[in-house]
Amino acid sequence: MVSKRYPTSIEVARLAGVSQSAVSRTFTPGASVSARTRDKVLAAADSLGFRPSLIPKIMLTDRSGLVALVVGGLENAFYARVVQILAARLREAGNQVLLVPVDSDYTLDAVAARLAQYRVDAIVSALAVLSRDAAETLSASRIPVVSFNTPVTAARVGSVGSDNALGGWQAAALLHARGIRHPAFVAGPADSPASTERLTGFRDGLRAAGLPEPRVAGSAYTYDGGAEAATQLCTEGAVDGIFCANDLCALGTIDALRRAGRRIPDDVRVIGYDDTPAASWGGYDLTSFDQDVPALVEAALAMIDRMAAEDAGAGERELIPPRLTERGSTRS
Amino acid sequence: MVSKRYPTSIEVARLAGVSQSAVSRTFTPGASVSARTRDKVLAAADSLGFRPSLIPKIMLTDRSGLVALVVGGLENAFYARVVQILAARLREAGNQVLLVPVDSDYTLDAVAARLAQYRVDAIVSALAVLSRDAAETLSASRIPVVSFNTPVTAARVGSVGSDNALGGWQAAALLHARGIRHPAFVAGPADSPASTERLTGFRDGLRAAGLPEPRVAGSAYTYDGGAEAATQLCTEGAVDGIFCANDLCALGTIDALRRAGRRIPDDVRVIGYDDTPAASWGGYDLTSFDQDVPALVEAALAMIDRMAAEDAGAGERELIPPRLTERGSTRS
Repeated sequence: MVSKRYPTSIEVARLAGVSQSAVSRTFTPGASVSARTRDKVLAAADSLGFRPSLIPKIMLTDRSGLVALVVGGLENAFYARVVQILAARLREAGNQVLLVPVDSDYTLDAVAARLAQYRVDAIVSALAVLSRDAAETLSASRIPVVSFNTPVTAARVGSVGSDNALGGWQAAALLHARGIRHPAFVAGPADSPASTERLTGFRDGLRAAGLPEPRVAGSAYTYDGGAEAATQLCTEGAVDGIFCANDLCALGTIDALRRAGRRIPDDVRVIGYDDTPAASWGGYDLTSFDQDVPALVEAALAMIDRMAAEDAGAGERELIPPRLTERGSTRS
Repeated sequence: MVSKRYPTSIEVARLAGVSQSAVSRTFTPGASVSARTRDKVLAAADSLGFRPSLIPKIMLTDRSGLVALVVGGLENAFYARVVQILAARLREAGNQVLLVPVDSDYTLDAVAARLAQYRVDAIVSALAVLSRDAAETLSASRIPVVSFNTPVTAARVGSVGSDNALGGWQAAALLHARGIRHPAFVAGPADSPASTERLTGFRDGLRAAGLPEPRVAGSAYTYDGGAEAATQLCTEGAVDGIFCANDLCALGTIDALRRAGRRIPDDVRVIGYDDTPAASWGGYDLTSFDQDVPALVEAALAMIDRMAAEDAGAGERELIPPRLTERGSTRS
């Protein structure tokens, strides 16, 4: 893809009838230039659509004002919200967002190399999973990296995330309060730390409430994955309370339960995680945990600033407490 | 936000015990360098995490490999999908995506100036609405611009979009075939060309089928907007078939109809636009039009290439036929 060349300062100088140095001084904050020359330059620049380039400054300073945002599936409304809020906050701070969609971890290596070539100031990874290898690759580039919901420990790689274990515990407490006796968990991918932590907290909370171990099914953060897992749980035994690893799974779970003739919440109570817009829609009315995306984003930006200020911040991790919103899917 | 400096070619040269010029030649395709020197340089670069900068090349060529993507609300799954597919295609072509979230048209002017400073190669605007003023601002920057679903006519500003009028006509034909007699339209924002075109096609189709003028309510592409519009339509008169300007409106419409005691499709048939994932969920089972995002993206990229190759391509517009998927919300 090739664009027309941008208007140059030479063209501006020619049109304004001034020297190229006068154009340069007009666009350098604090530089000396007469009001008359300045007006001529600005008029010429305006008519040509001239904008001074940031590129020489980037070359001199190695500061690009670019922050890379690595994402895996925007079809998950949670990640769409992370991108939206993070990009808006970075723009407020005068930075620009380089969006890097990747299919999986395995493509991250090549991407990191390319980002380094653009001299990005930081990388935020909103991948559901970040392997240790990928974290090492990012760490080697000397760019501060913050990962969402994946506890990684490499130099200059930190992480922020929802307090998933706390959420799991609270899900157990709520289902216990609603009188359920046959708990189950619909899981995300086996290698997702968030899913594992939610299950751990759920197990601990059930145990503390004197309830049995949850049965577990599922292995994807998707609508279809949730539907399949719920069908399996219904077929293989009794179930009256299901905590799902995320909202997308929970929506599939609810639809599969309804197809199997189960009423919600009367026969089965369902809880999700992420509090996506669909959770509040009448078709689902899903109890869910809000990860507090604005708080996650602020924590990530503050962590990047700390890592940039120190020589090599190591594996910091910050947890944000989730906020439970109860809706019709668990009410008595 | 300030990052650690990137490793420099001077550091690599020192560690490898070679000249800086040897480092430069190692990273210049086709340049002459001995195998032994090359190996020393690569080993040193690897251990330091050195990546050659693209910045000098951008300065020399005014080609950054950056394409700006301007988006308004990723909470609409349609736009999330556009971003996902477009970013993946651009990455395949060796470009990077600069993501520019804007709240509305009015913030676009300031954004365009900033993008020009980064020497972006092209701008794709996936805003629902693009005003004539904003289009002129973009046009003045000499950067090729493609807008989604907004027919704008300025130099170097083209547009691709779904054939909304055709979709509207097909919606009318389907509702006619299902025997409806009291049609209505749930609109998007008054200044959205896509919503207006869908209504125009719907009106023409209804007229051709001998059905009455549709009643119209609503003014937002949102779930709540759709719910309010549907409530108004139910209160003010008879309605048995509703075409909604997008899926989000249609989901709100369905839930409001159900709260009002109307059965879908028995009492009221509902059609959306965008064919978002939620349309296929059991809670809604919504008939909808797929805009064919991959085809829209290919058309946009081809248009950018044409505009870049010519001196000032003017106001090209390309329409992609929508694909209707019928589901439970309109079946007999």
